[in-house]
This record gives sequence, C-alpha cells and structure tokens, in this order.
Amino acid sequence: MSTLITNVGELVTNAAPGDEPGRGPGSFAALTGAALIIDDGRVAWTGPAGQAPAADEVVDCEGRAVLPGFVDSHAHLVFAGERSAEFAARMAGRPYRAGGIRSTVAATRAAPDEVLRANLARLTREMLVQGTTTLECKSGYGLTGPDEARAVALAAEVTPEVTFLGAHVVPPEYEGDRAGYLDLVCGPMLSACAPHARWVDVFCERGAFDADEAAAVLAAGRAAGLLPRVHANQLGPGPGVQVAVAAGAASADHCTYLSDADVDALASSGTVATLLPGVEFSTRQPYPDARRLLAAGVTVALATDCNPGSCFTSSMPLCVALAVREMRMTTQEAVWAATAGGARALRRTDVGHLGVGARADLILLDGPSHAYLAYRPGVPLVRAVWRAGQRVTAPVLDDGQ
Amino acid sequence: MSTLITNVGELVTNAAPGDEPGRGPGSFAALTGAALIIDDGRVAWTGPAGQAPAADEVVDCEGRAVLPGFVDSHAHLVFAGERSAEFAARMAGRPYRAGGIRSTVAATRAAPDEVLRANLARLTREMLVQGTTTLECKSGYGLTGPDEARAVALAAEVTPEVTFLGAHVVPPEYEGDRAGYLDLVCGPMLSACAPHARWVDVFCERGAFDADEAAAVLAAGRAAGLLPRVHANQLGPGPGVQVAVAAGAASADHCTYLSDADVDALASSGTVATLLPGVEFSTRQPYPDARRLLAAGVTVALATDCNPGSCFTSSMPLCVALAVREMRMTTQEAVWAATAGGARALRRTDVGHLGVGARADLILLDGPSHAYLAYRPGVPLVRAVWRAGQRVTAPVLDDGQ
Repeated sequence: MSTLITNVGELVTNAAPGDEPGRGPGSFAALTGAALIIDDGRVAWTGPAGQAPAADEVVDCEGRAVLPGFVDSHAHLVFAGERSAEFAARMAGRPYRAGGIRSTVAATRAAPDEVLRANLARLTREMLVQGTTTLECKSGYGLTGPDEARAVALAAEVTPEVTFLGAHVVPPEYEGDRAGYLDLVCGPMLSACAPHARWVDVFCERGAFDADEAAAVLAAGRAAGLLPRVHANQLGPGPGVQVAVAAGAASADHCTYLSDADVDALASSGTVATLLPGVEFSTRQPYPDARRLLAAGVTVALATDCNPGSCFTSSMPLCVALAVREMRMTTQEAVWAATAGGARALRRTDVGHLGVGARADLILLDGPSHAYLAYRPGVPLVRAVWRAGQRVTAPVLDDGQ
Repeated sequence: MSTLITNVGELVTNAAPGDEPGRGPGSFAALTGAALIIDDGRVAWTGPAGQAPAADEVVDCEGRAVLPGFVDSHAHLVFAGERSAEFAARMAGRPYRAGGIRSTVAATRAAPDEVLRANLARLTREMLVQGTTTLECKSGYGLTGPDEARAVALAAEVTPEVTFLGAHVVPPEYEGDRAGYLDLVCGPMLSACAPHARWVDVFCERGAFDADEAAAVLAAGRAAGLLPRVHANQLGPGPGVQVAVAAGAASADHCTYLSDADVDALASSGTVATLLPGVEFSTRQPYPDARRLLAAGVTVALATDCNPGSCFTSSMPLCVALAVREMRMTTQEAVWAATAGGARALRRTDVGHLGVGARADLILLDGPSHAYLAYRPGVPLVRAVWRAGQRVTAPVLDDGQ
C-alpha cells in the first residue's frame, strides 16, 4: 500500500536531487509546499505537492512540517533502578553518597530479565512517540560476562544498533585488578556479547580507561567483528578522540575538552563528533563547543545519552533546543545533526534523510517548520510518527480507557 | 460520582493537615503511599492508601506521583502570526528587521475572530495536556479599543483569569502622542475591556511605561474594578516592582534586575515575584536570581509567559526544569512555585494544592516523584490530567483515526 503525505509546509529531506545519501559533507535540505510518497516502507517520491502521483491513502498535513525520524545514536537503556535523589542533590549543590554508576550496576545485576525488558520497552516507546525512529543502545551496567551478555541480548530485541560497553568502568570487585578486568572484557565477556552486538565502545577518560587500555578493547572488539565507537573527552582533556580516530571509530562521543589536534583529527577523518547536550543540562558541566567543530568541518551528531545518572532525558527535541540555545548551532544544523548526523554516527545510509529509497521514518510536527523544535522548547510537538512506513498510533497522554 | 486515586507513590498536596490553604508562608508538602478521593469535582479526602474510604471508581496509579495541576499565571495567548524567523535569527546572532511585537500587533488586528479563537483553543489544549489546569491570559496585541475588547472577550471564553494589558507598548500610531494613548488606555479602552477582565497589567520598563504612567494605568484599572499586576524589572533596573508593591499588585512578573530595596519591598508585601525562565531560555537574557528572592522570604511563582516573541513555550514542566537547572531552585521549590505559587499570584485559594476542598485539578506523572519533572527534562511525563474532577482524554500524539 502506498501513502501520499501531502500539503507539507516544510519537508526536511537532508537530500538534494541526485545526492547519494550518506556520502560527502551532508547538509540540511528542505522543500516547501511539498509532498512525499511512502511505498513498501520506503520513500518512493518527493516533490512539489501539485505534482505528486496518486496513492492508496492520503494524509493532509495542513501546512505542518515533516522531518526524518530522529536517529539517537547514544543511549544507555538496559538498567534497573533510578537516581533522582542523586540528581536533586547535585542540582542543589548538596553532597550525596552511595550514588553514581555503581548503584545502577548493583540494581541492574539484581534485576530479573522481565524488569529490564519492561524498562527498555517503556523507554523505547517513549522515544518513539517523541520522534526517535532509530536508536543505539549500550550495555555497560552489567560488567560481568553473563550480565553484559544479558544486556546486549535484551538490547538486540529492540534495535540492531547494539553496543557492547563492558569497558564502561572497572567494577568494584576488580578494583585492585584492572588487568584482570580488561582480560575479562577482551576475552570471555566479549565472546559472550559479540553475537548480539554491532558495536564496541569504551569510556576513555581519566578514572575509567586510558589510551592503551581503550585501544586494546577496540582492537579486541574489531577482531570479534564489532565496529568501534568511543566515549571521549567528556570530563577533561585526554586521548579519547585520538584513540577513536586511530581506530577508525564511527563516532567520538561527548567531545567537550578538545585540543586543536583533536579537532583536526576529527575533521580529517570519518569519525563523527557526537554531542550530548542533555548531559550538560543535567550536570551543569560546560557544553561542548559545537561552533568550533562545525567551523573545522567536523561532522556533528546530536544524541540524548539517555541514562539514569548523568542525563535521563529521552527527548531528541530537547537536545535540538539545547543545541540551538546553548551551543549556538543554527536550527538547520541542529536538526541535521539529530537526524542525518546520527545516521552518520551509526554508519547508516537508509535513515536520517528522506531521499528516495530511504526508510520511511517520518515525524509530523505541530508547527510549520523544523525551527519550532527550538522556538517552542519543551512542547510535545511531535504529532505523528511513521517508522518504516507504519504509523505509530499510541497516545502519549493516557486516553482513560 | 466519587473517584479514588490510589497507590500514589508521591502525592504532592502543598497542604498540611489543618492548613488554611492560601494563607501564611506556604511550602511544598507531600504524602507517600497515599490516596485521594475526588467527589463532586473537589478533593474530598487525602491520606494513607490503606485507610482510603470506598468510591464509585478507582484509579490505580501503580506508584506514580500525583501533583496539583499547574497554575500558569502569565501567558499572552490572544494573537495571530508567528515569529520563528526572528527567533532563529536571534539565536544565530543575526540581525533581523521588522520583527518584534509590532509584527504580532499587526497580524492580530488583521485576524478574524475565528483565527484568534482557534489559536487560543489550540494553545490552551496544548497547555492542558501538559498539566496546566489554571491559566491567566492577557490582551496586549490589539492596542485599539475594539481590538483589546475583542482580545479580553476571547480570553474570557477560556479562563476567568483575564488580564487587560492595553499598556503593553505604545502602538505605532500613537508614537508622537504617549499622553493620548494613555488617555485611551485609561478611558474608553478600559471601559470596553473591564467587563471581560479580572486583572489590569502594565509593562513598566524603559521603552514601555514609566512609574507615573504605570501607576496611573493601575489606578484607573482599580477604579474600574480590576486587580493589579505588573511586568517589572525584566530588561533593566527600574521602578516596576515598587509600583507593583505600592499598588498592592498580586504579582510582579519577570524580576530579573532588582535592587535590595526591591527585594525588601516584595518580602514585606503580599506581592508575589513571578519568574518566567522560558523567556531567558529563549532570549539568552540573564535568569532572575531566585535564590536571593527565596532567601529574603519572597513568595515565588513560575509561569511560562507563552507568547510568539520572547518565549513560545507552553510547557510548565520545562519551566520547572529550567528553574532547577538555571535558577538553582530545589525540585520542591520549583514544583510549589509552579502550582501553589501560581495560585498565590492569581489570589486563588481553590487551586495549586490538593488540600481537602480544593478543586480536583490533578496531574498523574509518569514517574514516582515530582523530581522527575527536572530529572527527565523535555520528556512528556504528564500521563493523565483531571480538571475539576473530570479526566482529560485527548491524546497528545495523533492516534491516526
């Protein structure tokens, strides 16, 4: 069955006619007074509304904007427990003991599968109704072989973009034996996780894993068939970006504390800089310098980093608004980064744009242009969502039935 | 019919047993493991879930939090047109001509009633599904007798908290004749508007109206039976707060640039300081110093200022998150300010709390505590809303029917 989406005020395509999606320096592109045809789950045609071919079904957008579904390329959704008290203490400048990632690791290990699965389902559903049609999901709160294997297997139930993050932190039981933990991560834990994952990730930061350790984790992951990505330069200057670029990582994530050499390395590589402004909003850490990266020609993506500790938003619209307000990205740059940029960070060419042949992942916005995501911050503007051509039908607000 | 709302993880009441709501220095109060009975549109009982009396209908909250509906005491919703291009230019640091309030005034004057009414209905609906069960609505984009009268009459169709704001700015056609415009505002325009309004407001700021002009507008409004409120000290130091306190205003709104004398005046008066952090988010102006006000004992409210120019959010949840992140209010202070504080700013004792006898305006939150509004910024957490005991049933996300 084909669907004509017509009377679109602004159709954000991120694709020019003749573009080969996913190649070359992409940029925001949009049509006004446009229409789009979905056929067999794919974008079959885009162009002026008056020239649209016929279709089996017609959706009149009444001048509203249509965007590609968001691609959230960084999320930690396999966990149990919550840390709202730690958050409230941090915001109030009060000390808080017994918080941190360890509390999430303990809760996650203790949780039965069905609890983790239900939490994951709730969060991915919440993301979907906010317009996220592609998401990456990391392990990293298990930190034993069986717990990490369980995490990636659960993540694989909801997305193909599964990341093995055994090298998140050294767990308490290995505190005196870093080498032993790295042997576990690069050995039996990796073997147990690799069949369920596409990516390997490492938190390369003072207090987590250094350059040599990170490179070893990525090399082991590669040998097991996984593609690399890196948590880099979030909390201070460090080797993360250089490790990522040297490993050919698809993305270096966070990128707050960068040297000129780091920026140059990103600009001259295929490694995307993924910025996560929800983290800075939720921790009061400084925002990354998006303009410096963009000026240097670095490809920038935006993602949520949704996790119970440093940032528990699942909202790509909020990340777009924060990118505009706090990182001075233009509304076009921010929307591109949240869609096509995320796709680059996942090495995907089928999502993040609405060129012909793309997967028909669409957001109908309650406003005439993409700029409304920043112009109307916090407002639930996502009016309808299609994923692979299928309309998502659940209401956000309970309908009382 | 009575309804039992039970298994509430955290029931925010803003009322202690024996409290006389709306009197004395109020503060956040909550019960855990609680229940609430709605009867005839009012709160009939609150207490431990295990002790709840029977009711005709039962709603199981499954451990989620229930809050009083938000009271948004400052919004400009009667307008036509939009200013997203002006917003995008401001965020990008680009000059922008022909924007500003004058463009909204021109569009509003030119719009037929049904356009204004539809926009108003859309925005109030959007607010309701985000948990705003009481809202104030100002005129101020008409600035002729008939256009202001039309605005307050339309506003009165959606809320009793209607504010006459003829003294928003001096319109272009009176540029050389301020005295003439003030005569109009305090004379025929006020006479035409007063029957539809409860409040009179004035923008007391350099470039708008000075202390004498503002006092004259408030005095005329009072003589016509309206209660005063003031836009004060938003863009720079000035007499706004002192004018507000001297007039016995219910609220001085914005309050960014305050002298010690201004803070003292607020603390020793019944005038609430209403803070509007969505404006600072959308303009990059400095946030008001909420902690200074709270430390001095000033009653603080939070509101959206929803308008097409300086802040087009309608989201009280975002305002709570911004108050916590940017103004260092605790989550309790912010939620109190967005509910009971707003009620104080409108001199209402029936809303903003869930003491026995209050109007049954409730929000069911998708999280176990009020802190989730800040812990999960941008996420549409409002799962259900009751206004005067009636459940609101429209979905935010179009259900495709």
